Amino acid sequence: MSLTLVLGGARSGKSRHAEALLTRHPAPWAYLATAQAFDDEMRARIAEHRARRDARWRTAEAPLDLPGALEAAGPCPALVDCLTLWLTNLMLGGHDIEAATDALEAALAARGTPTVLVANEVGLGIVPDNALARAFRDAAGRLNQRLGARADHVVFVAAGLPLVLKGSP
Amino acid sequence: MSLTLVLGGARSGKSRHAEALLTRHPAPWAYLATAQAFDDEMRARIAEHRARRDARWRTAEAPLDLPGALEAAGPCPALVDCLTLWLTNLMLGGHDIEAATDALEAALAARGTPTVLVANEVGLGIVPDNALARAFRDAAGRLNQRLGARADHVVFVAAGLPLVLKGSP
Amino acid sequence: MSLTLVLGGARSGKSRHAEALLTRHPAPWAYLATAQAFDDEMRARIAEHRARRDARWRTAEAPLDLPGALEAAGPCPALVDCLTLWLTNLMLGGHDIEAATDALEAALAARGTPTVLVANEVGLGIVPDNALARAFRDAAGRLNQRLGARADHVVFVAAGLPLVLKGSP
Repeated sequence: MSLTLVLGGARSGKSRHAEALLTRHPAPWAYLATAQAFDDEMRARIAEHRARRDARWRTAEAPLDLPGALEAAGPCPALVDCLTLWLTNLMLGGHDIEAATDALEAALAARGTPTVLVANEVGLGIVPDNALARAFRDAAGRLNQRLGARADHVVFVAAGLPLVLKGSP
Repeated sequence: MSLTLVLGGARSGKSRHAEALLTRHPAPWAYLATAQAFDDEMRARIAEHRARRDARWRTAEAPLDLPGALEAAGPCPALVDCLTLWLTNLMLGGHDIEAATDALEAALAARGTPTVLVANEVGLGIVPDNALARAFRDAAGRLNQRLGARADHVVFVAAGLPLVLKGSP
Repeated sequence: MSLTLVLGGARSGKSRHAEALLTRHPAPWAYLATAQAFDDEMRARIAEHRARRDARWRTAEAPLDLPGALEAAGPCPALVDCLTLWLTNLMLGGHDIEAATDALEAALAARGTPTVLVANEVGLGIVPDNALARAFRDAAGRLNQRLGARADHVVFVAAGLPLVLKGSP
């Protein structure tokens, strides 16, 4: 079924745009949250996103087992917010990124209802000073390329507005 | 009247593009500068921008009271360069960003001639190390989204060339 | 002859896209590499790019004398990967950026076969803390604007997918 990738920077409106795309499909909708609330800043961010969503959303936390969460969402259209935090969690936990991405692609291919993936674009600033940040930026770019190749529809969001990279406008 | 938002990175050509859009309208034009010359680097940048503009431009400095400067510009088509430095000034001065943005939107709505706003996109790099930079990046993204929703025409500039996010090409 | 500029972030797929554009023209192709292998990380990156290219590619290293390498490529369609590393090399070596860019433009104007230039967009993150990084970001933006004005075709690549900034899609 249709796969959409919504790319954008921090506070670009990408999550809101992704929600608007997913809710064109019939409810209930699965919201697969990859964020982990380690500190107050992240807790505030999660609470703000959650406050936007009504009872038709079924929220599941999927910091690491995103393939399993997609399978568990079954026939619900699903929003993954976001791939880049999932990658962060995998890297911090020392997991195999290639194997996890393979499992994600298999889970996406098996779905019978639409999926919308949100991802950050993080490679458009100055080269970071530290090697870990460079490795993360490379891994995030590679992940976006893999999902971009697989998706039917890819958009880049800036100032809340989409530019179509792939598929119909 | 028509409102245009020109987004772009550092040295993307966004100011030059914004000037080209504004000068399609009859002179004189108001140039509302939000930069403050704290150091030599900034003084050089301001002088370079100013050297590009001829006598048909009326420059006003508006580091904080941008709504007042827009009102004072009266019937002149106005260029605001740039929103992101205005936001920086507000944050450094401890001002209420929400209230200032409301006042800006009211001033824009009251204008009877075209306005072109320049803004930086700052959210497409790696997550900054320090909390202040993250807060700034979030505030800049939110401001761009609010103005993007209100504008008739939004473009993203890279290498001096515009991509249309909203409105006609 | 036709000049193409391929812009993008780190690991955006810009090199691969540039190769796909160049190999539409008849082989052999010149690959002008500006990277210098100072450390293992860079050696790995260069090896990975090289492994993608077959015997129809003629690789030349051009960390500084890119104009000479373009002339030496003669009638071969040429890929320059990438302008931003060339700029880095020029700045680290204390060379005159303006003079080098003039020489590059003259070499490009003299070519009788297609050229594809790869460049990084580095100005879309938070303002860097240090003055050297800010100077580099400004120089990179200026270089991209100059080549963007000269090119027949300019694309911005994200997640492996191109957005057309100039020329036909």
